[in-house]
Amino acid sequence: LGRALSLIENGDGDGRRLLEALYPETGRARVIGVTGPPGAGKSTLVERLARRCRSRGETVAVLAVDPTSSLTGGAILGDRVRMQDLDGDRGIFIRSMATRGTLGGLARAAHDAVDLLDAAGFDRIFVETVGVGQGEVDVAYAADTVVVVAVPGLGDDVQAIKAGLTEIADVFVVNKADKEGALAVRADLEQLLALEGGSDPALRPPILETVAVEDRGTAELLSALDRRRELLAARSVLARRRRERLRLRVLDLLRERFLTRVQGAGLEGAVESAWAAGTDPYAVADHLARAVFREEPPS
Amino acid sequence: LGRALSLIENGDGDGRRLLEALYPETGRARVIGVTGPPGAGKSTLVERLARRCRSRGETVAVLAVDPTSSLTGGAILGDRVRMQDLDGDRGIFIRSMATRGTLGGLARAAHDAVDLLDAAGFDRIFVETVGVGQGEVDVAYAADTVVVVAVPGLGDDVQAIKAGLTEIADVFVVNKADKEGALAVRADLEQLLALEGGSDPALRPPILETVAVEDRGTAELLSALDRRRELLAARSVLARRRRERLRLRVLDLLRERFLTRVQGAGLEGAVESAWAAGTDPYAVADHLARAVFREEPPS
Repeated sequence: LGRALSLIENGDGDGRRLLEALYPETGRARVIGVTGPPGAGKSTLVERLARRCRSRGETVAVLAVDPTSSLTGGAILGDRVRMQDLDGDRGIFIRSMATRGTLGGLARAAHDAVDLLDAAGFDRIFVETVGVGQGEVDVAYAADTVVVVAVPGLGDDVQAIKAGLTEIADVFVVNKADKEGALAVRADLEQLLALEGGSDPALRPPILETVAVEDRGTAELLSALDRRRELLAARSVLARRRRERLRLRVLDLLRERFLTRVQGAGLEGAVESAWAAGTDPYAVADHLARAVFREEPPS
Repeated sequence: LGRALSLIENGDGDGRRLLEALYPETGRARVIGVTGPPGAGKSTLVERLARRCRSRGETVAVLAVDPTSSLTGGAILGDRVRMQDLDGDRGIFIRSMATRGTLGGLARAAHDAVDLLDAAGFDRIFVETVGVGQGEVDVAYAADTVVVVAVPGLGDDVQAIKAGLTEIADVFVVNKADKEGALAVRADLEQLLALEGGSDPALRPPILETVAVEDRGTAELLSALDRRRELLAARSVLARRRRERLRLRVLDLLRERFLTRVQGAGLEGAVESAWAAGTDPYAVADHLARAVFREEPPS
């Protein structure tokens, strides 16, 4: 499994053939995304949830995706050390993925990895990712249900959540709920949800409280996630979401190909010449588009 | 000028022709980017800097780009009200831009707007943007020098800065420096800079302290920015950065064209069919690539 994941991460032909062969076996796992700002306690929360699922007899995979670790040097990898005592258990599989080059590449690799783990037969897959920008939202799309974790004391984390995560949040968690400011965070989230509205009140995400380090509230969170998944399935939201996932993955693959073609068309040389000649960006783009898209020159 | 900016924001043919005609007139303005998390006091800081430049006799344009305001309803526009008493002054021009559709489109429009303001003859252009993700980094590339604003009390803002902004920061500012925790923010930034290293110690960004609401530290900030610009120009960094700006703009324009072609190739229908048939994303991407890039089918 580890070797297969490495093949997939490398994004070469072997990985691709493997995924095509496995694709018909996907679609059975319950995939849970856990996202939120750095320091929200996502890793601890995932560890607690993973242990609970294991004690119910489910097999569990944890995929920790860190879009920032090319800069910070693998913070999530450090957190993973805490889960090492689970490593003797063959019913649980843990893997970290960090940015190699582009964020787009990471989202692709994360989606592919979920497919592989799904086809490998894991009952539960947790995808943990730092929620800050569009790239992370793309990663969260790999999940059926998404938990957005907020905590007191990070100031503008609720503000950050506004910028894209509310659309995909199924359950909000105020972690470190025993800390000062937890009520304020909850109130902020409630206000945010009231603003967002949404046509179906039954689909409004619940707000739960946890203290992950003490394992408080995690049983309730797991139940809420399961109830949520049933609700989404009954209203065809789950199918719609998986369809959207397919769409985003197709677009990602096309985008990778586009970037390869742009390089092949001589982007760097064209920019160099344009810079020297004072040519405007629109003219350079026109010139390159002819090679990238095999366009005819304008008449 | 306002009408010209609207043409550019719409991204149609007239705006494009205008930009091509104006392009030879660009390159004279001093463009300063100001970025940082929401609540860091960027608007107040920009207002103070703008007033200082005006009192020196410079003409000033302020472009406030809010990538989040399609959701939050124009927070920056609200802040702009504070600058209204500058509005009677014909030597200053203020404009807010919010997300319309894609973040990529916003970055393009922001770069185009800087070109227009530059060609219009403003001595200084401030580009203010919320620093959270890649899209905002792209906006910051419109500037010659970039100020990254941190403040005490936002918890993980220094962590957030790690994720992409250090590479483009010329000056760090600890705003609200009279508040508790300012020293800790400064220490965090120093540690971050020590980690980043960089081959040229002279280019390591200085860390300044401001209390923008009381106009404290803003004169020093403006001097630091001017010194920084001279240093960058002397070491050819400014030219390299403007060249990189040209490169990013070309890539953005190609990306917009790519997305148009993908839609034209029938992305939505292809995804719909693939979803119904259980086709894997790689096969769908292959199929669409033939139309998007006029590729031959694989042999």
